[in-house]
Amino acid sequence: MTQRKSFGSDNHTGVHPAILQAIVDANPGDAVSYGADELTEQVTAGLREVFGADEAFLVLNGSGANVLGLGLLLRRHEAVICAESAHIYTDECGAPERLLGTKLLAVPSPDGKITPEGIAAHLSGRGDDHRSQPGVVAVTQSTELGTCYTLAELRKIADFCRASDLRVYLDGARLANAAAGLDCSLAELAECADVLSFGGTKNGAMGAEALIVMRPGLAEDVPYLRKQQAQHTSKMRFVAAQFGALLAGDLWHANAAHANAMARRLAEGVDGVDVVHPVQANAVFARLDPRHITALQQEWFFHVWDEHDSVVRWMTAFDTTESDVDAFISAIRTTVSA
Amino acid sequence: MTQRKSFGSDNHTGVHPAILQAIVDANPGDAVSYGADELTEQVTAGLREVFGADEAFLVLNGSGANVLGLGLLLRRHEAVICAESAHIYTDECGAPERLLGTKLLAVPSPDGKITPEGIAAHLSGRGDDHRSQPGVVAVTQSTELGTCYTLAELRKIADFCRASDLRVYLDGARLANAAAGLDCSLAELAECADVLSFGGTKNGAMGAEALIVMRPGLAEDVPYLRKQQAQHTSKMRFVAAQFGALLAGDLWHANAAHANAMARRLAEGVDGVDVVHPVQANAVFARLDPRHITALQQEWFFHVWDEHDSVVRWMTAFDTTESDVDAFISAIRTTVSA
Amino acid sequence: MTQRKSFGSDNHTGVHPAILQAIVDANPGDAVSYGADELTEQVTAGLREVFGADEAFLVLNGSGANVLGLGLLLRRHEAVICAESAHIYTDECGAPERLLGTKLLAVPSPDGKITPEGIAAHLSGRGDDHRSQPGVVAVTQSTELGTCYTLAELRKIADFCRASDLRVYLDGARLANAAAGLDCSLAELAECADVLSFGGTKNGAMGAEALIVMRPGLAEDVPYLRKQQAQHTSKMRFVAAQFGALLAGDLWHANAAHANAMARRLAEGVDGVDVVHPVQANAVFARLDPRHITALQQEWFFHVWDEHDSVVRWMTAFDTTESDVDAFISAIRTTVSA
Amino acid sequence: MTQRKSFGSDNHTGVHPAILQAIVDANPGDAVSYGADELTEQVTAGLREVFGADEAFLVLNGSGANVLGLGLLLRRHEAVICAESAHIYTDECGAPERLLGTKLLAVPSPDGKITPEGIAAHLSGRGDDHRSQPGVVAVTQSTELGTCYTLAELRKIADFCRASDLRVYLDGARLANAAAGLDCSLAELAECADVLSFGGTKNGAMGAEALIVMRPGLAEDVPYLRKQQAQHTSKMRFVAAQFGALLAGDLWHANAAHANAMARRLAEGVDGVDVVHPVQANAVFARLDPRHITALQQEWFFHVWDEHDSVVRWMTAFDTTESDVDAFISAIRTTVSA
Repeated sequence: MTQRKSFGSDNHTGVHPAILQAIVDANPGDAVSYGADELTEQVTAGLREVFGADEAFLVLNGSGANVLGLGLLLRRHEAVICAESAHIYTDECGAPERLLGTKLLAVPSPDGKITPEGIAAHLSGRGDDHRSQPGVVAVTQSTELGTCYTLAELRKIADFCRASDLRVYLDGARLANAAAGLDCSLAELAECADVLSFGGTKNGAMGAEALIVMRPGLAEDVPYLRKQQAQHTSKMRFVAAQFGALLAGDLWHANAAHANAMARRLAEGVDGVDVVHPVQANAVFARLDPRHITALQQEWFFHVWDEHDSVVRWMTAFDTTESDVDAFISAIRTTVSA
Repeated sequence: MTQRKSFGSDNHTGVHPAILQAIVDANPGDAVSYGADELTEQVTAGLREVFGADEAFLVLNGSGANVLGLGLLLRRHEAVICAESAHIYTDECGAPERLLGTKLLAVPSPDGKITPEGIAAHLSGRGDDHRSQPGVVAVTQSTELGTCYTLAELRKIADFCRASDLRVYLDGARLANAAAGLDCSLAELAECADVLSFGGTKNGAMGAEALIVMRPGLAEDVPYLRKQQAQHTSKMRFVAAQFGALLAGDLWHANAAHANAMARRLAEGVDGVDVVHPVQANAVFARLDPRHITALQQEWFFHVWDEHDSVVRWMTAFDTTESDVDAFISAIRTTVSA
Repeated sequence: MTQRKSFGSDNHTGVHPAILQAIVDANPGDAVSYGADELTEQVTAGLREVFGADEAFLVLNGSGANVLGLGLLLRRHEAVICAESAHIYTDECGAPERLLGTKLLAVPSPDGKITPEGIAAHLSGRGDDHRSQPGVVAVTQSTELGTCYTLAELRKIADFCRASDLRVYLDGARLANAAAGLDCSLAELAECADVLSFGGTKNGAMGAEALIVMRPGLAEDVPYLRKQQAQHTSKMRFVAAQFGALLAGDLWHANAAHANAMARRLAEGVDGVDVVHPVQANAVFARLDPRHITALQQEWFFHVWDEHDSVVRWMTAFDTTESDVDAFISAIRTTVSA
Repeated sequence: MTQRKSFGSDNHTGVHPAILQAIVDANPGDAVSYGADELTEQVTAGLREVFGADEAFLVLNGSGANVLGLGLLLRRHEAVICAESAHIYTDECGAPERLLGTKLLAVPSPDGKITPEGIAAHLSGRGDDHRSQPGVVAVTQSTELGTCYTLAELRKIADFCRASDLRVYLDGARLANAAAGLDCSLAELAECADVLSFGGTKNGAMGAEALIVMRPGLAEDVPYLRKQQAQHTSKMRFVAAQFGALLAGDLWHANAAHANAMARRLAEGVDGVDVVHPVQANAVFARLDPRHITALQQEWFFHVWDEHDSVVRWMTAFDTTESDVDAFISAIRTTVSA
């Protein structure tokens, strides 16, 4: 791996030192397995409190959380409406279709967000038994395109969904970045949702995601479904330890706020470059000349997001430093002015 | 949690110090995610070599490995034949049925092992399109009852299966204990199988299992299926680090051999007690008076395996000490002679 | 096909003349497709009335009805408890596992019936998230072994299930034979069930089964699930016509009562033969010398039910005549006394 | 039902007299069930010959054929590329997702046809284990919009697919209309496909579809999968009889050619009306003033295809007469000129 800081993904990082320490600290002695240990109880209680949630469960990864969460909200003939850029639609190798048997209905969403209008466009076949019946709207916050729904936008979606007998699932793999970006609480973000995920892995954890159940009456089956979907883990204390550290002193917020600040610094530093989406979380999407992309990738790691449109994605993380960003800015400037 | 050593499960332990150190050592710097990092490449190469395998993949837990492995071997109308005590049959909340849509056909197996005769009893409906067609035989080594198939027994099963157009999946959540118990290599154990799992978690890891593909031509779809079944993880280096430590200096063997020795010490130490299965790995199953069970459980953690039959399971682990065992033996003796 | 009457199955017959006529009569003119036609409305209203049901739906075959009906009653982590001889367990090529992802837990049932004791034996793991949670008990009436649950037996099962938070599905592929055999109404048989199927095909129809939903609140999703499971048919009037004819003048009862009478005549006529189950519907199971089976099968069509145990199944149908039976009795007698 | 001829669907018709007669003729006597009868053997042999196919199987409806056929061609992580108007995408209540667990990737297709360019747009993520991997292209012939792929267009798609390691499934619910419309043989249409369906129901049958397996080596599992997906039927002779009648004297062709001619007559007769797709099979799509639609629907049965765009669908069938068409034309003319 290159010694230069990766701008490829917020999951290229290692683990935040405080989280690693929490794992180490959780190690001595025995603990009852499969989440019946004290640490897991404490940490899930902490999550419930932070979110004002009915229940919280720990799982192993984001796809696992998404499938588990969507499944709680879906009847068997129902479909999920989501943005065409949603992770569940494009990046989970068809897990929702395979594991839930559900249809996903994509909504064009140039800035990564869906709107009531986009949702409404999929509702024309309701009551027709030949059509998959939309049952759930999946919202990603922050979005795959580095944007954030405002609280007002979320409320509008939630109101529309409630009025339309649709439930709301929120994919919060980067929820911390949204909370930091919008300067609001996790509970405020969660209010719109029946169920949501809360990501740890992209925010400094080793591998830890939480499923947050907001609406009462949904949580009863989760332990069984989590086991059935192979998202349960015997030595749960080590997942709990990660979230414990993230909650302690709001480390989740500090990590996310820092990553966001680094993305803004990057976007502002390359002001000649065509940044194609508002930078509201920890990603910068930019359109570059293909030759410049190739040149930059000689030294720096990042992904081309849309080859056709020549758009790249630069991601920052809890451990991206100002000097990492400045060195990258300098390289970009040199390259694009060459 | 009690301060006395748990005999409840080999997953009540923490992480072996060398494995924890390997996790810590893997932390600095960036690494490409989803297993494209150098450490993962090294470790999977190591696994391939140890097993003489075609390919090796890292996954998150045992149920995940089992579903992934069975799925490689099954056509959609095929069933799995397994012991009625098999983990896939009793302890995964129906994951194989749910995630693979397959039927499991259980074989009575008083000592945890299936035999060619038991398999043959399920073959009468072959060619009848009303019947699920047996396609895979699942073998657990060491078994859920703490016994081990001998190499000769495995060979007999493998020969029978090959002659009967059946593939063999080996659930190796405790394969290390079997290798130590039988004093043979992992490769010798794997020979019978088309695909197998190799467990790390119960042998001192934090949460790490491997899928070992022996038969050429099967591995191509695994990366997609692993992602689809939510068994992929972004920060794979930390799973790789665990197996790296287990392979280094054959730590896997030392841990398993020690756990086995502790189980034997326990079984031998309670010689008045009715030990109901041969102690060939790291578990002791004993029949006790129900009142003695209740009394012992006041101070010691272990599970009742069969309430009806008043049989308990005592498991040892890499970190069970001789004095843990001796103290437990002493408590058992005191209790049963009271 | 042999010119002698088949005793192989009640689905070897053609269609009862009145049912065929009803199909012919339904043909002229257009009809709105997918069950929105008047005939379908009339016939499903008739079924609701006969059963005292909340709703009735027409489907294409028995496996389709079973999967649809079980699915209405199952949560995703739940298992079905059924007799080990149940059609859903042995004769649908794993359809429930594949289409519902559910586990089936078989109960030994020498006479084809399950009992509260047999059900209770599968309830020990309740509340343990590693275990598939029993959610539905499936009862077959008349059973695969030609026996019938009495109303008292059904009530006992239903009471047990309600007390145990289990729902009841009744596979009624031969429900008419049970009603005729027990001299009770279809509604009395249905009382024990939350959902049941009512078979037409084995009772003189061409291909028509009904799903009868007894418990209110379950029917809403059926139209979608029926379509999704490919059990919907565009020209539904022809399925409706079949049930219309079966209901008219209680043809269903006459057909079934006749078939039952023929089975009794057969069983009584071969009194030297070892009839292994009570003959309470339209099947006779008999143990014969293997050489006698082979000899008889030269001229007569019937199935060996259990090769190991040398048991054959002789089925009668609406169109089996007394002289068919007498000729067969005569052949059997000649053979077994040879 | 209205006494005026329905233009709502080609499945509003009854059964063609010759097909009904064939059903009646198939009735006398016993027949071995589940397709082991002589008539089924004859008819499937006939289908094999007509298509130059490896194997042919009878099933109960179009959704069942589609799911069965697609399933033969898909690996578990693969997706299906299809037109956004495809029946499998919009009109089967999510059956492919539910029963196969597969993702469907829709291609915009204004005239109902997909093109190599449209297919290619979904191939960019190949080899990336986060993406569903396109494995099958589904083509509908004739299309849902009443158009037909020419043989050259089919060949172009087939060539592209073979070069791109994609298999071709052809949904032939109205294949007869395409063959009649293009004046070619069924075998010529089938050449492009690995597997296809051949519809009977919309062409005068009661309820009968065939699955035609062109590529050798795929058919072996079909009997099991057909049973598992509840598309098998015990009294198969009555499905066979329908296809027997359709094949006899090429009734399938006569029926389809007539329906097509009636659609052309209708389209030509309403020449002031905006017919929005070429009329190449048995459907006419027209854009009408919404008030005219409402007025016409007072007396005539047909569906609004696209409410937003004010487009209606008029379908003709084997039994639509010239005077039906002329009366409808007259009503349309009167309405639109009012």
